[in-house]
Amino acid sequence: MNSLGRIFRVTIFGESHGPAVGIIVDGCPAGIPLTTEQFVEDFMRRKSGSPGTTPRKEEDIPEIKSGVFNGSTNGAPLTILVQNKNIRSSDYEAVKEIPRPGHADFVASEKYGGFADYRGGGHFSGRLTTALVAAGVIAKKIIYPIHCNAKLIEAGGTTDIETAVKKAMDDKNSIGGIVECRINNVPVGLGEPFFDSLESLLSHIIFSIPAIKGIEFGSGFSSAKMKGSEHNDKIISINGQTETNHSGGINGGISNGNEIIFRVAVKPTSSIAKEQKTLNIKTGKMIDLKIDGRHDTCIALRVPVVVEAAAAIVLADFMLLEQKIKRINN
Amino acid sequence: MNSLGRIFRVTIFGESHGPAVGIIVDGCPAGIPLTTEQFVEDFMRRKSGSPGTTPRKEEDIPEIKSGVFNGSTNGAPLTILVQNKNIRSSDYEAVKEIPRPGHADFVASEKYGGFADYRGGGHFSGRLTTALVAAGVIAKKIIYPIHCNAKLIEAGGTTDIETAVKKAMDDKNSIGGIVECRINNVPVGLGEPFFDSLESLLSHIIFSIPAIKGIEFGSGFSSAKMKGSEHNDKIISINGQTETNHSGGINGGISNGNEIIFRVAVKPTSSIAKEQKTLNIKTGKMIDLKIDGRHDTCIALRVPVVVEAAAAIVLADFMLLEQKIKRINN
Amino acid sequence: MNSLGRIFRVTIFGESHGPAVGIIVDGCPAGIPLTTEQFVEDFMRRKSGSPGTTPRKEEDIPEIKSGVFNGSTNGAPLTILVQNKNIRSSDYEAVKEIPRPGHADFVASEKYGGFADYRGGGHFSGRLTTALVAAGVIAKKIIYPIHCNAKLIEAGGTTDIETAVKKAMDDKNSIGGIVECRINNVPVGLGEPFFDSLESLLSHIIFSIPAIKGIEFGSGFSSAKMKGSEHNDKIISINGQTETNHSGGINGGISNGNEIIFRVAVKPTSSIAKEQKTLNIKTGKMIDLKIDGRHDTCIALRVPVVVEAAAAIVLADFMLLEQKIKRINN
Amino acid sequence: MNSLGRIFRVTIFGESHGPAVGIIVDGCPAGIPLTTEQFVEDFMRRKSGSPGTTPRKEEDIPEIKSGVFNGSTNGAPLTILVQNKNIRSSDYEAVKEIPRPGHADFVASEKYGGFADYRGGGHFSGRLTTALVAAGVIAKKIIYPIHCNAKLIEAGGTTDIETAVKKAMDDKNSIGGIVECRINNVPVGLGEPFFDSLESLLSHIIFSIPAIKGIEFGSGFSSAKMKGSEHNDKIISINGQTETNHSGGINGGISNGNEIIFRVAVKPTSSIAKEQKTLNIKTGKMIDLKIDGRHDTCIALRVPVVVEAAAAIVLADFMLLEQKIKRINN
Repeated sequence: MNSLGRIFRVTIFGESHGPAVGIIVDGCPAGIPLTTEQFVEDFMRRKSGSPGTTPRKEEDIPEIKSGVFNGSTNGAPLTILVQNKNIRSSDYEAVKEIPRPGHADFVASEKYGGFADYRGGGHFSGRLTTALVAAGVIAKKIIYPIHCNAKLIEAGGTTDIETAVKKAMDDKNSIGGIVECRINNVPVGLGEPFFDSLESLLSHIIFSIPAIKGIEFGSGFSSAKMKGSEHNDKIISINGQTETNHSGGINGGISNGNEIIFRVAVKPTSSIAKEQKTLNIKTGKMIDLKIDGRHDTCIALRVPVVVEAAAAIVLADFMLLEQKIKRINN
Repeated sequence: MNSLGRIFRVTIFGESHGPAVGIIVDGCPAGIPLTTEQFVEDFMRRKSGSPGTTPRKEEDIPEIKSGVFNGSTNGAPLTILVQNKNIRSSDYEAVKEIPRPGHADFVASEKYGGFADYRGGGHFSGRLTTALVAAGVIAKKIIYPIHCNAKLIEAGGTTDIETAVKKAMDDKNSIGGIVECRINNVPVGLGEPFFDSLESLLSHIIFSIPAIKGIEFGSGFSSAKMKGSEHNDKIISINGQTETNHSGGINGGISNGNEIIFRVAVKPTSSIAKEQKTLNIKTGKMIDLKIDGRHDTCIALRVPVVVEAAAAIVLADFMLLEQKIKRINN
Repeated sequence: MNSLGRIFRVTIFGESHGPAVGIIVDGCPAGIPLTTEQFVEDFMRRKSGSPGTTPRKEEDIPEIKSGVFNGSTNGAPLTILVQNKNIRSSDYEAVKEIPRPGHADFVASEKYGGFADYRGGGHFSGRLTTALVAAGVIAKKIIYPIHCNAKLIEAGGTTDIETAVKKAMDDKNSIGGIVECRINNVPVGLGEPFFDSLESLLSHIIFSIPAIKGIEFGSGFSSAKMKGSEHNDKIISINGQTETNHSGGINGGISNGNEIIFRVAVKPTSSIAKEQKTLNIKTGKMIDLKIDGRHDTCIALRVPVVVEAAAAIVLADFMLLEQKIKRINN
Repeated sequence: MNSLGRIFRVTIFGESHGPAVGIIVDGCPAGIPLTTEQFVEDFMRRKSGSPGTTPRKEEDIPEIKSGVFNGSTNGAPLTILVQNKNIRSSDYEAVKEIPRPGHADFVASEKYGGFADYRGGGHFSGRLTTALVAAGVIAKKIIYPIHCNAKLIEAGGTTDIETAVKKAMDDKNSIGGIVECRINNVPVGLGEPFFDSLESLLSHIIFSIPAIKGIEFGSGFSSAKMKGSEHNDKIISINGQTETNHSGGINGGISNGNEIIFRVAVKPTSSIAKEQKTLNIKTGKMIDLKIDGRHDTCIALRVPVVVEAAAAIVLADFMLLEQKIKRINN
């Protein structure tokens, strides 16, 4: 459903073209200083405007509706609301008959019996990642000095990302990409067998992010081609430091104290200006679809800060669970 | 923790060299015929014996301790217990000082303050997948006519798997592999936004399986190199059938009625007969480690039936949640 | 924490003197007509104004922030926000040093290390029951034709409630009361052993309501004085109808198709205008405390609609779980 | 369902006349010494044999199937299994047609479509409290020096319990009773608003125990007859000690450091040797039912140790959640 986490628990809500999107953070320790200014940087990183991202102006102003008192978290659930503005719903009327290829239009209509909000993907929209980023801002404070750093390392099959994006824009097409996340200063011992391995929880939240189609930890799919003698990371220090890091900092689902490394595959944006063939499900006829409106050429450009937020949310939960954080009230 | 699922909920227990491993299946509808014979086939597929798998004879006999009455599930939690036999614990005394590279020995010792059962990986052992397979047998009955079919499609970087395994055995080394799972007859609508996408739940349980280091859905990591015009699956029928299946049967985290396809990367078995360098954490000295005992050359050979079980468990939960199954009592 | 329910899942937030209180309802089926007008009646029942309730004017206007599209629920999480108005925070500064007897001031301060919002009880305030009532409005629609009917049957030890309240007001004191809830048209079979009995879940949510100190089902505490031959409800019809209803419509934690009956004990309002002795925890000196401000003489007067909402929320969850409701999309 | 708890999480299984009953304790810290001998005392207190309890000899021998290594908990899920012995299933064949008044026979048959194990109440049997007591033994170790002490304070409406029981036996009838539980050495701050108040969680688990029909905290139902000036507990020390304890040690759902006190109402045993009228649901005819077999005259006699276990389980979860316990591995 729309909640995740055992101690640090987030509940997300909102639709692309509804009144607002937002998130409730439950289980946040009391006494953490928090102001709306502290959301600006990550909101900016996620925001539209740069080449390859949608020109829709999102004026994302976080409103703290509960959980903060005198500038600090107060131990009660923390609610962040972001009003939706600059919405042009008329763009989406056609979706009712012509589900857009690659989008959730068809499945949402089927699942919710025709009652789903079809405008801009509704609750399935990438717009909801704003809320995820908001929770990430809080999570990052909690896990400090653990640091999550994600970046786009490849787009359209190349590391020359700028050129790839420009070419795709010219073609009225879109491209996918690969985002790598590295997490430093992780203590040994995060992750809960059997079902709540670190990989399990990280992948769980990562696949909530729209457009993600793969994840690999450490050497990942390359591991499948390796020999044990190559893949095994030799321990070289009594604190668990290893010489190599093919495991991506995780053994048996538990952090081993080395850098956590994972990569995610982001598919190309489904909405493209180029004409595509698809079905009108009311008439049963194939038609030519040209999607107007504002769309990202390479949605992967905006994914890194969302991946960081997602990872930080999971780590905050594990840190609180493992009592590695001293609650301020103790 | 050691439970997963909202309606069809499994709780796993046991250690490699403890008295038993087992699983409780809660939320299983009443009225499903179940006998211990029905576990034999999947237990055999998982079992050791074939080339490349450990020669440890596991006589896995499922004992139904609760939840079945007069040959059918009775609506109460169903407990399957499998006694551990043929255990040689003396093999593992050295682990206390010399955590094996690639294994959970080091992290388990740290996490549980020296109290973890270090014999054969304890609760981290692949032995627990017996319990997962047992729950899978029940889940497969529930999701019928949905069918999960997993197979090893590559090992050691080649499709000539038999040769690759033989060569690795001769080298006293191990190899990884890639397992592909295809799921047919899936209705439209499984998966729960925002956090419980089908990919989220499938990856969550899949990464519980020891040795898995990556997962991708549909075109997965290849998607990252594709254009939107290539990747978008054209809908060609009003029931949602698509011409291609780059999405792997999932849009917006929801099943779209096409075949679900995913692949997982299995790392090479960590235990190898070949000598490796590693640290004695008591003395702080690097030593030469030669792991005796019984080990799989290619653990990936045994993974397909475990992947099927894991997938079936998640699907059973979604099917019950979506009310696609008529409970027998209705 | 601040969430409850497995299918129909509510998450509550807000503080008495913060910007807003509200609730997210997750798992609500799509296709239920919903307008803000439909909250008015239950909000009015809960509202202040009648004799014995606080004169604070609460202009409770529900704002639907997500989950409704074109006048119907859309399957996404439904957010109801109620802005706080007419707040006089200055009344509460003294609480920091002098925790009010009977209130959560002392425990909140201890638990949250001094960071709790102490104004008007903060997150512990009865103000949050507005949000509960809002969720109840939706739940009541889902469980129809099940009907919950709660009323105050005793206050200050008498059934002449009006007189009892008037007398307490004159005394600058407060009184408690007993609220009885009767639930009709309940199907057989709601409740999930072992831990989620109908009594377990109903009592769980009921004790979330501030000021509740006891609950009993059917004959309740009187049962303890009865003989088995008296207490056993004779079944007189093949649909499970019983001659008497000492069990309160529940056997083995499961609804038996008869009327569900329970009673709750509401303690007297803790805030009283009458002078009381208590401790200044900063100085360690006993002082005379006179609580000014606006307070209920008999909070029990406002409890019935909250109890109904709480019961409806639990029943909605059980009805969806038991698939007794046909989702509109099926 | 059959699991409860967030950190210290128990999962119960078994039927009265099935192979076994048992419980899995997940989230138990590593390093707690545990032997099967330590279950004897509480098992004896719960056991049958004394006047007023069923003469069925239950040889309850706990078998630890997982989670203990070298005499201490190892951090993995702990499984306690108790085999069922001395079972005479033939006693229960009639139940299929004649659901026993006061029992779950009717609702279980309806809920599980005729597949429920009807022998001795199946999964609804008081037999399962053996498993609860087992988990309680572990919980009591964790919460030390918190101490739970429950006792029967009234039966059949009198404190002369011995006489009341004897009289009921002579009458071939049964009687109910009231059990009071007092919990000492509780730190301030246990309980999690909004929905997980201490009363909410305690009542949740208490109502899982068969035959419980009411619970009250502190002055409970008497509070409803009191004035605020009487009920408010005056704080007299900076550590929160109060002069009176009408609140039962709980304010705002949070422990206030004083003794926690609650009472539960236990209904009279439903099975009585005395003849009762009831319905044969197959023939639709009223018949005279005489229940043979072995039954408790006053089940309340066996409830205190079960109530203690239930309370300890909830407190263990809160203590671990609040980090009041230092995990041994920290």
